[in-house]
This record gives sequence, C-alpha cells and structure tokens, in this order.
Amino acid sequence: MPFEFESRVRYVDTDASGRIHYTAMLRHFEAAEIELMRFLGLGLTYIEQDAQGMQFPRVHVDCTYTAPVHFEDLLRIRVVVDRVGESSYTLGFDATVHETAVAQGRIVVVCVDIATQRSRPLPEALAEALRRYQTQAAGVMNA
Amino acid sequence: MPFEFESRVRYVDTDASGRIHYTAMLRHFEAAEIELMRFLGLGLTYIEQDAQGMQFPRVHVDCTYTAPVHFEDLLRIRVVVDRVGESSYTLGFDATVHETAVAQGRIVVVCVDIATQRSRPLPEALAEALRRYQTQAAGVMNA
Amino acid sequence: MPFEFESRVRYVDTDASGRIHYTAMLRHFEAAEIELMRFLGLGLTYIEQDAQGMQFPRVHVDCTYTAPVHFEDLLRIRVVVDRVGESSYTLGFDATVHETAVAQGRIVVVCVDIATQRSRPLPEALAEALRRYQTQAAGVMNA
Amino acid sequence: MPFEFESRVRYVDTDASGRIHYTAMLRHFEAAEIELMRFLGLGLTYIEQDAQGMQFPRVHVDCTYTAPVHFEDLLRIRVVVDRVGESSYTLGFDATVHETAVAQGRIVVVCVDIATQRSRPLPEALAEALRRYQTQAAGVMNA
Repeated sequence: MPFEFESRVRYVDTDASGRIHYTAMLRHFEAAEIELMRFLGLGLTYIEQDAQGMQFPRVHVDCTYTAPVHFEDLLRIRVVVDRVGESSYTLGFDATVHETAVAQGRIVVVCVDIATQRSRPLPEALAEALRRYQTQAAGVMNA
Repeated sequence: MPFEFESRVRYVDTDASGRIHYTAMLRHFEAAEIELMRFLGLGLTYIEQDAQGMQFPRVHVDCTYTAPVHFEDLLRIRVVVDRVGESSYTLGFDATVHETAVAQGRIVVVCVDIATQRSRPLPEALAEALRRYQTQAAGVMNA
Repeated sequence: MPFEFESRVRYVDTDASGRIHYTAMLRHFEAAEIELMRFLGLGLTYIEQDAQGMQFPRVHVDCTYTAPVHFEDLLRIRVVVDRVGESSYTLGFDATVHETAVAQGRIVVVCVDIATQRSRPLPEALAEALRRYQTQAAGVMNA
Repeated sequence: MPFEFESRVRYVDTDASGRIHYTAMLRHFEAAEIELMRFLGLGLTYIEQDAQGMQFPRVHVDCTYTAPVHFEDLLRIRVVVDRVGESSYTLGFDATVHETAVAQGRIVVVCVDIATQRSRPLPEALAEALRRYQTQAAGVMNA
C-alpha cells in the first residue's frame, strides 16, 4: 500500500530524442490503473460495466515530467485515489526509475450512461472499493 | 490514378534509432486506405457498415522497408487494389519520400458478420467500387 | 490568427469505447505544434537544433476533454503561445469538431543542452518568433 | 524452450471495433523480442550496440491474424529464431490466448553500420547466441 505496478519502457515508447515520448508515459499509467482495479477485485466488474451500459471516459489528464526516461527503464508506478466524487474519481500516479521520481500525473475519470451520454453516479461497488483503498493508503502513508 | 495520399511523419512516429518506428508506417497506410475509401465515395458507407452489422478486421499484413524514414519526411503513399475476393480484399501500399521507395506493404481485409463472427460476402457496392478502381488503375499503369 | 490546423481522427486513434483514446488527442496536438513551427518559419530550425546540441522535452502536459470525439471527425486545432520564458515556453491547444469544443490542452516545453542535460536559454530566433506570434494572436483576439 | 513471454492487452491497444488494433499486436511482439534477448543474456549488449555504432532496423514484417483479441486478454507469445544470416536474422512469433492461436508473425532484422548506413555482419556474440537458441528450440520441438 499504496498499490505499485512495474512496467518496462519498450522501444516503441521512445522517440528520436532517445527518451520516452511524453504520451507513452500515459500508456504505462493506464496499465497501472487497470492493475489497481484488478488488485481491488474490480477488474472484471470494470469490463462488464460496458455491458451494463456504462463507460468511463477520461475528462482530464495532467502530468509533470521530472527526469528523462529511456528504453529498458523499469517504471515503478504508484497509484493513489485522490478523490471519489458522485459520478467521477481522480487517480494519482507517481512513477520512479531506480528511486528517481520521473513523472507525476493525474486523471479524472467520469462514469457515463451510454444511452444518454450523460454522467451518472458511480456504481456503488466501485465507489466503495475506491474509497476504502483511498483510506487505507492514506493510513499507511500517515503511519 | 492510382490514388495517392500524402502523410507527414510526426515526432511520435519516430523511435530512439532516430528513424520512424516500423509500426508507424502501418498507421500511415491506414490513413491512406481510408482516404482511398473516401475518394471512391465509400467513406461514409464504410463507417455505416458497422451499424449494418459488419466489421472489417485485417487478417494479414506484410511490409518491406527499403530505406530509412525520418521525422518530417512527407510520405507519398500510392494505394492499389491487389485482389477483390468473395468476402475479402487485398490492398497494396507503396510509400516514397522524395521519389525514393521507402516501404511496400499489403493488408488483407475480411468482411465479418458481427452477430455470427464469421466471414460474409463483401457488400456489393464496396466490391464493385474496388473492382472498378482496380481495373482503372491497372489501365493507367499499362497505358 | 491564431494558427489553426486540421487533423483527421484515424481508426488507430480510437479505442474499444468507440471514441478517441484520450492520449491520441495529444498526438494531434503535436502535429499542430509542428505545423505552427513551420508556419512561423521555424520548422527547419527546430529540427536542426538537435544538431546544434539542444533538445526540447515536454515537462508538463494537461488536457481537459469536453465532448466525445469519434473516428473520422475532423479536428480543428487552434494553437496559441501562453508564455515565453527564459528557457521554456507554454503552448495552448483548443480543439473543436464542427464548432463544438472537444479538448483544451497545454504543454510546457523546455530547452535542454544535450551535453549537460540542463535547461538553457531558448535560442533567440525561437523566443522572438514565439513572442511575436503571441502578441499578434492576442491583438487579433482583442480586436 | 522455446522462449515464451506473456503480455496483457491494454485498453490503448484496442480500437473502435472492440478488438485489438492489428498494429498493437506488433508492439507486443517487440516486447517479446526484447525479453528473448534478455533471456539469452543479450539485453544489455543489444542496447550497447547503439554506442558501438550499430543499429538494428526491421526490414520486413508479416503477420497473420487468426482469431479476435480483446482488452484484458493475456497474450502468450512464443518466439523462435527462423534464420540467422550474415548480416540479418529472422524471428518468428506465435501468439495464443487461452490456447487459441491468435497471430503468427515474423520480422527480419538487419544489422546496420550507423556511419555508412549499410548492412554489416552481425556481432559474433549475437549471431552465436541466436544460432544456439535456434538449435536448442528445434531440438526441444523435435523431441
């Protein structure tokens, strides 16, 4: 706690600068996000929700890059829950390579009703699991 | 004739070698393919077919790379129809940069019935347009 | 003024939600950024700077997504210069589809000396062109 | 033997068809290729060769897709060495999901001298390791 996920920088993640392309970091965050969902027992639920008429578009992203990242670097990505709202939640990402902080990001995910294309309340199981994880992670970090 | 499409190599297309990543070329081919469909008056049809219960997965790709391609290079992509079958078709792609041949590829696209997930005959309008273009392009090249 | 660039949403930009993947928007912003550089007469300079020992990594990105974007949508991306600093600059991006605002983003680009891997002053020609464009665009928008 | 690598299909790998985009499979093959190199003790060597004036562009790719692949599928990718030539080698890839064959691909990689931009003999350590692995894998498959 908090949940950590390791993800290897691949050649396709790099660009002609010799470093990772800045958008590639966000793909690694996405992998970490899904693995957090699996860790919280929400993996299947998350996919099945599509069948249940919900989708989870991202409505905001921000990321600050604090050190260069290269091919073959092993990203260690810590994911925290920043906020659980009525119909959206915010995840925070913290990536390090060999203990060096390389990127700190955030995404805001909103729950949308596919039929109406409007936001709707988060499914209770999801909201509860995110809140529980948020509290536990905060407890560990304050301990 | 044959249809040509220009596509600019972007920074995200490159990798740490300083050249285009080999998979990025296939993204440019995809853009050229869609623009060919639009040129043939099939653009909208092609999208609407999803609503009509069909999909067009690629079942084969091959590509040979004959010269290095870099950031900012302007790809000139010629698209031909190699074959129109009962339920699939083959497109050929020829990319040049300043008259130098840089990549020659091919994709096989099959028409699938979404409900049964099996191949089905190509819609007649699509098959006919592809065949007409195939004949015309061949005529021009032989002239 | 301000500079606008049109960019077509490709199939590879979409994901299983049926909409554009949120990271794909950033690739379109990158294309718009480079085309702004070309428009300002900085295209070649920008590339040549790598040869001159400089690189331009992105140190921050943020983007807010305000409407769904789909395959074949034609993005109209307006680029503005938000800030020109000593060794970095901030670009703002505003994307619309058929007059609907779909995404508003920003990137902070820093000029780095390849040898020392530390930030260094922006090349004067670049800083000046960005400042001139910033003033002109602001003038037009206030007029 | 032969070497197998597991790779998870991510959301960004999918497209609006609801399946994996065909180019995304090639990214997973690339990950499997690098992990084979690491398994053969060539990981670092492979990267260091850039410093030693060599690069390894792909000059050919082909792939046949035999079953649909979806978000969250766990690809099991078997990598074999098809051929080790004087200045190039061919790798074969075989991907399954739950024992179902989903894709079979091949890439041809050539060793290029960065200074002359012409092909050059493979480094002996690399050629030898690839040949040894080719023989061993063949032995296991015939046993």
